[in-house]
Amino acid sequence: MSPYPRKKDFPVSEVRRYLEPGPIVLLSSRLGDQTNVMTLGWHTVLEFSPSLVGCMISAGNHSHRMIRDSGECVINLPTTALTDVVVKIGNSSGAQIDKFAQFGLTPAPAEKVGAPLIQECHACFECRIHDDVLVEKYNFFIFEVVRAHVAETPAHPETLHYTGDGVFMVAGKIISRRGLFKPEML
Amino acid sequence: MSPYPRKKDFPVSEVRRYLEPGPIVLLSSRLGDQTNVMTLGWHTVLEFSPSLVGCMISAGNHSHRMIRDSGECVINLPTTALTDVVVKIGNSSGAQIDKFAQFGLTPAPAEKVGAPLIQECHACFECRIHDDVLVEKYNFFIFEVVRAHVAETPAHPETLHYTGDGVFMVAGKIISRRGLFKPEML
Repeated sequence: MSPYPRKKDFPVSEVRRYLEPGPIVLLSSRLGDQTNVMTLGWHTVLEFSPSLVGCMISAGNHSHRMIRDSGECVINLPTTALTDVVVKIGNSSGAQIDKFAQFGLTPAPAEKVGAPLIQECHACFECRIHDDVLVEKYNFFIFEVVRAHVAETPAHPETLHYTGDGVFMVAGKIISRRGLFKPEML
Repeated sequence: MSPYPRKKDFPVSEVRRYLEPGPIVLLSSRLGDQTNVMTLGWHTVLEFSPSLVGCMISAGNHSHRMIRDSGECVINLPTTALTDVVVKIGNSSGAQIDKFAQFGLTPAPAEKVGAPLIQECHACFECRIHDDVLVEKYNFFIFEVVRAHVAETPAHPETLHYTGDGVFMVAGKIISRRGLFKPEML
């Protein structure tokens, strides 16, 4: 049995379910023979269909150039089980080390992009650059999610939400207010 | 004694502490005599200094035009104590009702913008439009936070993180990994 969460295809128009809550994500990338991974907390959903996500990827990150030049990345969603790995990834540079090897992450081939999926993560969203108009001025990439893979369980994994200063908030507890919503707002 | 959380000035370059975790926020606005408030989950921090925040404000919202025409808004951070109010705000339109009156919210004057602070919220960030280059194409506003007010306690309030479908994740539990960070990364 695979030690990784078994994932199934997920509608790209519904990735807001995992990204709108604002978790720390891991961006994986590939340029030529080199792969890399970085932590990211500065992202937002921008549109349901096409499925657009905006990410501010600081030019100081080794991944910035790899993603810009390849035009692709994968947004991977780690759970609290990966907390220490998330922090170590954010405190090292792909210019010096192979982060997949160093931190025991398992790459798997994506379907539509060259960047690898991170098998240990709860969800993996394959992305292509949709619009780079704000990359030069704000390091802001607008990606289209072209394929989504999500673990079958749990329905609501515990995720990490960064506050700065080495401190994360944890989200996992769920409350529903469906009864207060107009049907067209659901 | 005021029934509202007592707030103090907070450095605008540090608002990521409250926004990077990805909570649902309430945007308040004013245009002429009219005020309004909307819920928003699609936002991201873009820069520390100047303090920039990007918000995707759908053109279908009454607030879109008010914020566009006034050039200002306030990003207010509600806690779980306001859950039902947050949902009701998101399921009504300022074109039909006065949401401050209808939902018992208390406006207070801001210092640098015309839009009102929402006193019941944990934090209020006064914003001016910094760049509207993506408003036409993506409804994406880049704001500069020009003044910040944050309640003195609690240090980490429970916040709401929307998943769609009427369901919120709650964040509040804190974990620190300061010891794993390089000093320059804190």
